[in-house]
Amino acid sequence: MSLVRVHNFSVSLDGFGVGDGQRLEAPFGHAGQRLVGWAVPTRTFTAMGLHGAHEGSTGIDDVFASRWNTGIGVEIMGRNKFAPQPGPWPDEQWQGWWGQNPPFHTPVVVLTHHPRPPLELEGGTTFHFLDAAPADALARARELAGDLDVRIGGGTTTIREFLQADLIDLMHIAVVPILLGRGERLWDGVEGLEQRFGIEAVTSPSGVIHLTFSRRR
Amino acid sequence: MSLVRVHNFSVSLDGFGVGDGQRLEAPFGHAGQRLVGWAVPTRTFTAMGLHGAHEGSTGIDDVFASRWNTGIGVEIMGRNKFAPQPGPWPDEQWQGWWGQNPPFHTPVVVLTHHPRPPLELEGGTTFHFLDAAPADALARARELAGDLDVRIGGGTTTIREFLQADLIDLMHIAVVPILLGRGERLWDGVEGLEQRFGIEAVTSPSGVIHLTFSRRR
Repeated sequence: MSLVRVHNFSVSLDGFGVGDGQRLEAPFGHAGQRLVGWAVPTRTFTAMGLHGAHEGSTGIDDVFASRWNTGIGVEIMGRNKFAPQPGPWPDEQWQGWWGQNPPFHTPVVVLTHHPRPPLELEGGTTFHFLDAAPADALARARELAGDLDVRIGGGTTTIREFLQADLIDLMHIAVVPILLGRGERLWDGVEGLEQRFGIEAVTSPSGVIHLTFSRRR
Repeated sequence: MSLVRVHNFSVSLDGFGVGDGQRLEAPFGHAGQRLVGWAVPTRTFTAMGLHGAHEGSTGIDDVFASRWNTGIGVEIMGRNKFAPQPGPWPDEQWQGWWGQNPPFHTPVVVLTHHPRPPLELEGGTTFHFLDAAPADALARARELAGDLDVRIGGGTTTIREFLQADLIDLMHIAVVPILLGRGERLWDGVEGLEQRFGIEAVTSPSGVIHLTFSRRR
């Protein structure tokens, strides 16, 4: 059976997955780049082409970062990860943040209350827009993924809803030692999560704490 | 200058320092013993006489635990740590949870809106009951401590108030990998704390993540 996985999702020490005031110019709100600061310098993230050359750090942070796409057949993401504005699409020109050749190279299911036709870009990435609850979205994603794993790509609300629906098998969370104070909390409504997951932790010289949540069998 | 220190204070992964429903039979509310489970088996905690013989683990958890009383001249604690019931004292028979010879062996300032006469027990522990804001309580505690350090002993509200008043120099927090979902949050109202503290982390085989917060100079 394929697994449903989360990778490289950062939260602050006080549990916020995104800051307050998310908008086009500030996709993480008042958190700025602080939540992803550990990931950006890694070889994995530089190789996504967002930041130029194929170089970058190859230490512990990259060990965790690099696992994100291996064996993945589809990603499920929330509307907020795909586009900066909520509500009906003003037009269908917006193609995501990632340019003509997005780093996914798989189908991507975008959860939205405002479906639109599939969007096929270069390199194997096709966005499918779906208005569905987590379990139904996962069923559709598994059709698209074949035997491969499913990644839940975020944002905070999407991951929390899949956790609450008990649909996640493996989750990597990076705890960043900052106190955001406001924003969206990842951990709301998941009391007792440790009964369903073995939780392990390791620290990185960057200051981040990497956590793995592995479903108990 | 002496330091104001916090030691061995546990929070859940979602930031609760105590669970919901705190009462005499359940001092940590629905959290039960889970928040302190890492500390109880250590040599330091068994030596406090709460659990019998002077034995116990001497690994990483005890390294952190054992620092709690070295160089300390006074503790400040909240009323909730001293006694299970809020409000006016029904009588003055309650002498704390720790028996005739408490493990502090220093003066202890108990913050309460209902002062009562000092309570002197064996072994050098005297409880002083004070109705004061954090800065004033600290001034009184320093008089009692001489040149030694001041420990803020908890509970959650007391530590948070001293953090918000920027009165803490050194803080050890143990993050326990459980999701409590409800209770009292340590991290409310301390946005940007990382600007005032260097934060380091290390994991323990018990599963706990030990954090040190050291005031930036």
